[in-house]
Amino acid sequence: MRAAATSTVAALLAPRLTYSASASRARLSSFRLPLRRIAAMAGAPSSFRPEDARSPPALELPTPPLSKFKVALCQLSVTADKARNIAHARAAIEAAAADGAKLVLLPEIWNGPYSNDSFPEYAEDIEAGGDAAPSFSMMSEVARSLQITLVGGSIAERSGNSLYNTCCVFGSDGKLKGKHRKIHLFDIDLPGKITFKESKTLTAGQSPTVVDTDVGRIGIGICYDIRFQELAMLYAARGAHLLCYPGAFNMTTGPLHWELLQRARATDNQLSNVNQLFGASYLLQHVLQLEIPVQVMLLGGIPLLLGL
Amino acid sequence: MRAAATSTVAALLAPRLTYSASASRARLSSFRLPLRRIAAMAGAPSSFRPEDARSPPALELPTPPLSKFKVALCQLSVTADKARNIAHARAAIEAAAADGAKLVLLPEIWNGPYSNDSFPEYAEDIEAGGDAAPSFSMMSEVARSLQITLVGGSIAERSGNSLYNTCCVFGSDGKLKGKHRKIHLFDIDLPGKITFKESKTLTAGQSPTVVDTDVGRIGIGICYDIRFQELAMLYAARGAHLLCYPGAFNMTTGPLHWELLQRARATDNQLSNVNQLFGASYLLQHVLQLEIPVQVMLLGGIPLLLGL
Repeated sequence: MRAAATSTVAALLAPRLTYSASASRARLSSFRLPLRRIAAMAGAPSSFRPEDARSPPALELPTPPLSKFKVALCQLSVTADKARNIAHARAAIEAAAADGAKLVLLPEIWNGPYSNDSFPEYAEDIEAGGDAAPSFSMMSEVARSLQITLVGGSIAERSGNSLYNTCCVFGSDGKLKGKHRKIHLFDIDLPGKITFKESKTLTAGQSPTVVDTDVGRIGIGICYDIRFQELAMLYAARGAHLLCYPGAFNMTTGPLHWELLQRARATDNQLSNVNQLFGASYLLQHVLQLEIPVQVMLLGGIPLLLGL
Repeated sequence: MRAAATSTVAALLAPRLTYSASASRARLSSFRLPLRRIAAMAGAPSSFRPEDARSPPALELPTPPLSKFKVALCQLSVTADKARNIAHARAAIEAAAADGAKLVLLPEIWNGPYSNDSFPEYAEDIEAGGDAAPSFSMMSEVARSLQITLVGGSIAERSGNSLYNTCCVFGSDGKLKGKHRKIHLFDIDLPGKITFKESKTLTAGQSPTVVDTDVGRIGIGICYDIRFQELAMLYAARGAHLLCYPGAFNMTTGPLHWELLQRARATDNQLSNVNQLFGASYLLQHVLQLEIPVQVMLLGGIPLLLGL
């Protein structure tokens, strides 16, 4: 195996909203998501409540089922050997669960190369399951046996004559809780830099995906879906506690968008954004540099004030 | 006069999308807004069109009346002497116009101190005009005599028993084109850091403000209005070519929000954000580091895909 899986794990037991890791460590290692602390602070005398500036403010949402839990973002290198990729992902998930993670995320297209040539070859028939969908089956089995919530990154999905870029979310009973087909396909043509047209082989999904899990209500997007603010707003309005965007950003247009879009979605919608790669670390840096963590990561939704 | 006015001027005559100023200079000096070039590039072989990932994509909007023009963001220090502040602002506007600016912006609350005690004292009755509104009258007169579009930052406005934080926009004929009353009042209480409640004296505005000017259609917000994504989305949907948010951000919560929110509003809505202070420079930095200026600053609106 060329590269070992690295799991990035969030510890939620922060007695205070302090953050000792350096910025560079933060990107690679851990972040904290002290939801209960945040909720408690929201009612404290020291306050900053952007929601109150909306008229009327959003309704308070129910608190999530868990107020603290570990999150693992598994970073996986991918080979052309599908069986190896599956074993590699399983090992990363097991390592994360052994480290106490209750929510584990995989990256986008983790069971084979990211190319239009490869999508049809590595695609699985999720409805059929079993041997027709070995990546899917592994995820279901490991979620059940480890009793974790698994946001399974994405794999190419074959359905009839169409291929989708699909994220499967499994509950701790191993059952498929929800399936998100990437809505916004990434088509780009910058000669000499990057040319890629997902729409050449993939079909765009049509629906937002909100999943109730043991760790709360999660809104799912895949990579470029994060570029489109209306999806995150919709999730916030539907009461998502958390947004998860498994991704595989490119290095031409990615670096500036990746941080910006995560911070924007989280700040605008007051949600915790858990992204594949170093997304969560970026968010945390933002929160703590600001020294007003109360609202930025506050649980809750916003009204869609389009008649404002 | 303690501090001289500094006008930051955007030159629009870029033959290519190059940007020679350093990052630090950019914050203080100039940015380029090569709209025609951008529009032309949008149809070139090298393409990156996020809008195409929406289904259906937004309708193409009419091009703005001017494809290149200079923008001046006047940075003004404020004293307790209202007449002096007015003379100071006038001198800054005149300097900007002499430098070729067709669109000139003033900052938030520029005719007196930024405090709840001062708002009633410095407030003007805009409807009455004349001597009852010397700041207003100066802006109208100078816009007419210099033949510029003036986004007049904001002043406290008295209307009946209410006070508003109000931005007046003047056409090059000196007429009031639109009046924006700050919608989202900034209330914050972080003991030992910053405590300020605009709502103690001010009343929130109720309406978005879109103004057609010689330089295009402008959506107006004031400072904290930029925090609320739905306002920018609304402006984009109403065909704004440009968003202007005169501001006076504080230094406790401001630094991280100021850049983030401007970049987010501009990227998400594909508008050029012209902000008081160094906002525009931040945006330009973003665009040029990205090396894909085509879409980030592309003119146009987005559909509100809430049924997505």
